Amino acid sequence: MPGGIDPHTHLEMEFMGTVTIDDFFSGHAAALAGGTTMHIDFVIPVNGNLTAGLESYKHKAEKSAMDYGFHMAITKWNDEVSKEMEVMVKEHGINSFKFFMAYKGSLMVTDDLLLQGLQKCKSLGALAMVHAENGDAVAEGQQRMIDLGITGPEGHALSRPPVLEGEATSRAIRLAKFINTPLYVVHVMSIDAMEEIAKAKREGQRVIGEPVVSGLVLDDSWLWDPDFATASKYVMSPPIREAGHNKALQAALSSGILQLVGTDHCTFNSTQKAFGSDDFRKIPNGVNGIEERMHIIWDSMVETGKITVTDYVRVTSTECAKIFNIYPQKGAIMEGSDADIIILNPKGSFVMGAHTHHSRSNTNVYEGRKGKGMVEVTISRGRVVWEDGTLNVAAGSGRYIRTPPFGYLFDGIEKSDAAYRASLRAPVQRSKAAA
Amino acid sequence: MPGGIDPHTHLEMEFMGTVTIDDFFSGHAAALAGGTTMHIDFVIPVNGNLTAGLESYKHKAEKSAMDYGFHMAITKWNDEVSKEMEVMVKEHGINSFKFFMAYKGSLMVTDDLLLQGLQKCKSLGALAMVHAENGDAVAEGQQRMIDLGITGPEGHALSRPPVLEGEATSRAIRLAKFINTPLYVVHVMSIDAMEEIAKAKREGQRVIGEPVVSGLVLDDSWLWDPDFATASKYVMSPPIREAGHNKALQAALSSGILQLVGTDHCTFNSTQKAFGSDDFRKIPNGVNGIEERMHIIWDSMVETGKITVTDYVRVTSTECAKIFNIYPQKGAIMEGSDADIIILNPKGSFVMGAHTHHSRSNTNVYEGRKGKGMVEVTISRGRVVWEDGTLNVAAGSGRYIRTPPFGYLFDGIEKSDAAYRASLRAPVQRSKAAA
Amino acid sequence: MPGGIDPHTHLEMEFMGTVTIDDFFSGHAAALAGGTTMHIDFVIPVNGNLTAGLESYKHKAEKSAMDYGFHMAITKWNDEVSKEMEVMVKEHGINSFKFFMAYKGSLMVTDDLLLQGLQKCKSLGALAMVHAENGDAVAEGQQRMIDLGITGPEGHALSRPPVLEGEATSRAIRLAKFINTPLYVVHVMSIDAMEEIAKAKREGQRVIGEPVVSGLVLDDSWLWDPDFATASKYVMSPPIREAGHNKALQAALSSGILQLVGTDHCTFNSTQKAFGSDDFRKIPNGVNGIEERMHIIWDSMVETGKITVTDYVRVTSTECAKIFNIYPQKGAIMEGSDADIIILNPKGSFVMGAHTHHSRSNTNVYEGRKGKGMVEVTISRGRVVWEDGTLNVAAGSGRYIRTPPFGYLFDGIEKSDAAYRASLRAPVQRSKAAA
Amino acid sequence: MPGGIDPHTHLEMEFMGTVTIDDFFSGHAAALAGGTTMHIDFVIPVNGNLTAGLESYKHKAEKSAMDYGFHMAITKWNDEVSKEMEVMVKEHGINSFKFFMAYKGSLMVTDDLLLQGLQKCKSLGALAMVHAENGDAVAEGQQRMIDLGITGPEGHALSRPPVLEGEATSRAIRLAKFINTPLYVVHVMSIDAMEEIAKAKREGQRVIGEPVVSGLVLDDSWLWDPDFATASKYVMSPPIREAGHNKALQAALSSGILQLVGTDHCTFNSTQKAFGSDDFRKIPNGVNGIEERMHIIWDSMVETGKITVTDYVRVTSTECAKIFNIYPQKGAIMEGSDADIIILNPKGSFVMGAHTHHSRSNTNVYEGRKGKGMVEVTISRGRVVWEDGTLNVAAGSGRYIRTPPFGYLFDGIEKSDAAYRASLRAPVQRSKAAA
Repeated sequence: MPGGIDPHTHLEMEFMGTVTIDDFFSGHAAALAGGTTMHIDFVIPVNGNLTAGLESYKHKAEKSAMDYGFHMAITKWNDEVSKEMEVMVKEHGINSFKFFMAYKGSLMVTDDLLLQGLQKCKSLGALAMVHAENGDAVAEGQQRMIDLGITGPEGHALSRPPVLEGEATSRAIRLAKFINTPLYVVHVMSIDAMEEIAKAKREGQRVIGEPVVSGLVLDDSWLWDPDFATASKYVMSPPIREAGHNKALQAALSSGILQLVGTDHCTFNSTQKAFGSDDFRKIPNGVNGIEERMHIIWDSMVETGKITVTDYVRVTSTECAKIFNIYPQKGAIMEGSDADIIILNPKGSFVMGAHTHHSRSNTNVYEGRKGKGMVEVTISRGRVVWEDGTLNVAAGSGRYIRTPPFGYLFDGIEKSDAAYRASLRAPVQRSKAAA
Repeated sequence: MPGGIDPHTHLEMEFMGTVTIDDFFSGHAAALAGGTTMHIDFVIPVNGNLTAGLESYKHKAEKSAMDYGFHMAITKWNDEVSKEMEVMVKEHGINSFKFFMAYKGSLMVTDDLLLQGLQKCKSLGALAMVHAENGDAVAEGQQRMIDLGITGPEGHALSRPPVLEGEATSRAIRLAKFINTPLYVVHVMSIDAMEEIAKAKREGQRVIGEPVVSGLVLDDSWLWDPDFATASKYVMSPPIREAGHNKALQAALSSGILQLVGTDHCTFNSTQKAFGSDDFRKIPNGVNGIEERMHIIWDSMVETGKITVTDYVRVTSTECAKIFNIYPQKGAIMEGSDADIIILNPKGSFVMGAHTHHSRSNTNVYEGRKGKGMVEVTISRGRVVWEDGTLNVAAGSGRYIRTPPFGYLFDGIEKSDAAYRASLRAPVQRSKAAA
Repeated sequence: MPGGIDPHTHLEMEFMGTVTIDDFFSGHAAALAGGTTMHIDFVIPVNGNLTAGLESYKHKAEKSAMDYGFHMAITKWNDEVSKEMEVMVKEHGINSFKFFMAYKGSLMVTDDLLLQGLQKCKSLGALAMVHAENGDAVAEGQQRMIDLGITGPEGHALSRPPVLEGEATSRAIRLAKFINTPLYVVHVMSIDAMEEIAKAKREGQRVIGEPVVSGLVLDDSWLWDPDFATASKYVMSPPIREAGHNKALQAALSSGILQLVGTDHCTFNSTQKAFGSDDFRKIPNGVNGIEERMHIIWDSMVETGKITVTDYVRVTSTECAKIFNIYPQKGAIMEGSDADIIILNPKGSFVMGAHTHHSRSNTNVYEGRKGKGMVEVTISRGRVVWEDGTLNVAAGSGRYIRTPPFGYLFDGIEKSDAAYRASLRAPVQRSKAAA
Repeated sequence: MPGGIDPHTHLEMEFMGTVTIDDFFSGHAAALAGGTTMHIDFVIPVNGNLTAGLESYKHKAEKSAMDYGFHMAITKWNDEVSKEMEVMVKEHGINSFKFFMAYKGSLMVTDDLLLQGLQKCKSLGALAMVHAENGDAVAEGQQRMIDLGITGPEGHALSRPPVLEGEATSRAIRLAKFINTPLYVVHVMSIDAMEEIAKAKREGQRVIGEPVVSGLVLDDSWLWDPDFATASKYVMSPPIREAGHNKALQAALSSGILQLVGTDHCTFNSTQKAFGSDDFRKIPNGVNGIEERMHIIWDSMVETGKITVTDYVRVTSTECAKIFNIYPQKGAIMEGSDADIIILNPKGSFVMGAHTHHSRSNTNVYEGRKGKGMVEVTISRGRVVWEDGTLNVAAGSGRYIRTPPFGYLFDGIEKSDAAYRASLRAPVQRSKAAA
């Protein structure tokens, strides 16, 4: 089957005063060992400057061992940023921009900026992505926990409950509807957010929901572990939720309400996580997953009969390639496609953990997890890079994959705008009878 | 039955460069002729100053002909405002504060301010009210209409569709849930907003939804009337919606999902409405209703079998008195209650219009409307003020009714906070088995 | 406050080859000790004959120690039954009839019969009640468990999952809407059923949902207890559900989506429960609750701040009296009301169990449960019957309370029928433009 | 693009005392002229006998001019039928069985039979289909209209409102969930039914919803036409609904909540429709569409920007081939596929009507409808059969396409059953703490 594509990773990202421990080499090694042959990483602007951000990530990616693409985060707004977005799309092959509705004081954008961003994305044929949590309320919630004397990892989850993810998801979806442009919601972690997406779909809106592996199979009980090193491993945003959310996300994924699976792979080792030993607000947010994704989805979704093998290929690879407009170069085994191919043995089995994984992190949120299905061979652009449990990768062998604008989600947008405008100018003369 | 109480009016309000044409005398005359014996008006601060706003409204109310109470709008935030809120509650008998999520550039508040306002309201036992529309998006929508060359009254509705009311309602409700304080949503005009309230109720949240008469029985077809004077009469915010919304709001009202009926009586005559003859953004927003409310609700809800007579008294009077904590002084006919009493003849009938109404406005959005049920006698604190089609009212006879804090919606809030805190400090040790 | 009224009990009922162990004396003693001063029991016809059923229950009730009313079950359909229904309403003071959508082969009715029953109820002004589970599917589910070798009490819950309660609730509600008559859903045990009721209310339908104490505060984990005597205590239909359903039902109760609380008090002692030691299908279905209801609702709902004291009186007493049209004789402390009064000390506390309860059962599903709030005095029609932990009751002192037809739920039904018919005969001429 | 496949037709069907006017020749001619190169028709048993039904349809299909497959209706239940189902699947290439929840007294099945049918379908790997309306209530509704003196075509719609379609859809879905087998809901005509499907999908259930062209683009206003011949054309079941349902169905189709488009082509000419001139119950139910489907969907969905061209191919062809397990022989243009190919000119335009269509009917429900997009060439298994507005078809040239069991919807069903059984036998020991 086609190699996996992970739509959501953060390699060598500077964040919360430190840097994620997997870079474009170690992250790629891990990915390939797990059957993923491409990912799309988020370029973070430098002081709001997109070009500088891109330069920095180009440099980071020089050591890449597999193919990759870029999304771009938008963290402030002015004419310069607006122009740079155009340059990114037209010259640099970036067709997606992410807006953070959380992280007040750093990455968070206002509704005003989001509306302008959506409008700009639409005009460029670029996909708007959102991290959907209400940042103002999260800040309030964090202070509340501190005031209550709750400083441990559980405070992280308690300070930003599902209702805040549901709120922001509802808001982003409705603003995107108002602008009439497609929306991609990253890391859908809760029933609250998923139900907003389901509602929008029922009403015909083009909204993509991306659950991540941790949200699909873990629950928040780990955050209450008395051992800080254990509990802090599970800190990510939006938080991993109470049991029940995971099963509901699996169900929505199985029927296409949610459409593809990412990881938000964003790893910190235990020393880094320890920055927040006295204050959960300082625990770097992030979990691993780039190596585990293909195995866990096979085991938890295919082996349990929730999805078919065809669905599996779709949610781990093909849908991502289609959304980001690189199909069938990626996401397919066809004439002319890149030869990114894996062999997964359904009778194989796996045990996960920090001692055996290829990430540089000294921890793993799936420590000890066992299951069925094993990627035995990974072929990256025709070259066998993983076989018999051995990696054969080369720094610098990865290639940047340009993602062209106006992917399939934009088909018909112009026509629906025209239909909308037509309806405004020649409105039906409605009955005036009182109700 | 007990006289009606209108929870939502704007008498002699300075707004959009002019002043509503009904003051505390003419508005009261109209109300009494229609069987309403008390209302609660919104004090607008003067340059953000609450005390100055209150002084101004006290002066306006000197000519009052019936009893009235005050809500207070909050339009900016600082320590001063926070302190003034306390003074308003403790010294001036105001137990409700309204936040505008629309009217960008003038009244609109940010989420940050709203969160602080909700918190402050909670601590004072005051009810937070919201005008729920996304103001940033409305501004965008208005510009869009102008760009499309749509400058007439229909542009008003088109620029602020139901999705923006649904969004803001969803946001306000979830932020109130996060703060754990009751919320009152004024003028629920759309299915979108109503469904958010229904969902919150199903989940046990204390949310009050107030539909208004115009939203319950009119539809937006009037806004397309080729005659500007006719069309502009119907401009209010949120807008009167497409047919279908009205029936759905009636259904929700009949089953208690929505709980009481207001009017948002806010009248401008045709000269004032003409300010916006070239640009719908300049049409003063507002419709009449204080005189028509009791008749229309009887005719459209009781005469059609949708609600019982008991429900009628509840939604037009008792519920309002309970919410604003003045029951049973108001909203009841009991020993010790004020003698605000009306006699409604179900066999009587009415015809509405500017020629016969008691408002100073030269227009009426219910022009020509006929129906069953007629208030034949209105008694205000024991004095017959309306009988045989004749008003007998006196300027200055109205009394200010103080609304004490910590009404019934606050019962148990402290206990649920305590239960919440207890659950945080001694969390259940949950299973860690992977899903 | 007014004494509690339990809308749902089964005293001395012949069922599943045995008879419930509490009769009209012991059940009443238990009720009074728990602050309940009236209940409404279900008359079961004798071989489908209503009159014979009523005679039998009159006889059973001769030993009554408190006031009681009757609902009547309808278990088959013919002209005779239809006529008897009329007699029950007009001569015997019964205003509610229950239809079982479960218990295939004994009590279950078809849709056809249910439609005729709803129609007959409507014409008599009697309230239709349903036990909502799909009986055909339950029979299938039971056989499935047996085939899988699951014969213990957990098989009871597994054989009739929430989806079957949701289905039947959806069906009953929509058929009642089609007939345009009010509906009362007894023992709402699941989110699935509750959400159907919430949806119907949002659309303006008159549907009453009655949760019971066991469904509000217990969960199904008990059914997996390795001790049969323990596990079998919790067998009732619909089954007590997985944790999560209970909290959701509490939330819906707190906001009025569900309207009053019953018990389905239907007790069997451990010897009787043991009839099903080899086959869960033979375990007599039922749990206790008539004595515990007032205490548990106070503790779990008022003490946690979910409902106010006013709500408490409403859901335990007043609403029941209103629905069954005996307010204010019952459900109120007013001049002319029966003096059914209790004194509940919020600072008191309780411990529940078979050793101290007044039921004849040797088990109690709330064994060991502790909480706050204690009924210290119960007054039944003016006589102190419970004080200082001592009962002072007399067999035969109870009185039959007639429940008159056309309660408040029927107000306006005729008018809405007329409006419906008018809409049919003069339909709006709609646009024929293609969509 | 691949030729269209219509999943839902009734050619030469005996129904309501007459026979549909299009047979396997005229129906095929119409289909091919409209770009449809295959359809699946419903075999109706003869007196409940499946084999006899199949023989009859084989005979009818001898004159076929294009490829076709068969579904089979199940109208009664006994061991014989159960065995015949197996024969149909294993020997005759039929992989789908339809159950009628409506047509009381003729085709309608009880829940009991439906449960057995679902179980049998599951064991055979055959897809269960339902016509979802509550037949008992429809019968009641029909009588009600007659009693009210409403005998015209509008009585048809009034007698079976959307609530009855919603009810049956809810019931079928939940029973299929209980059995854990896929379900296909034919002719989804209302928001009520669609919302049930959306809910089921959100919860991960495998449910296919099939809207039909008439339901997507027409509204019920035609049924009120004063001209009986006009009004009666639009009589089908479930009925074409009030405006608003159509747009909502389009939205759900655009996002994949509904998955493919049929026609329920079932034509009667005006003489046949006249059988019911005095009683709507006698009007043969059915509308045309097999020739119009591809054009109308292109015009109303692609030209308005609601779906992409890829979606168009999916909903008109590919999805149908996949569901009925004949992909990629049908529904694709690939090596090895049948050469069923059409050329659609998006710049072409159409006008529809009885004078130009190829159906034998003398009426057309799309009379006068104009739009964009024109099928200019149709190739059936490599032979050009429609070009330059000329048909070149041959009776007997069509081929029966066997549909094998265990299509993709059955992938994983066994595994999920195993997971379910495993969960029963080793249930998690849950907390017993009271809620």
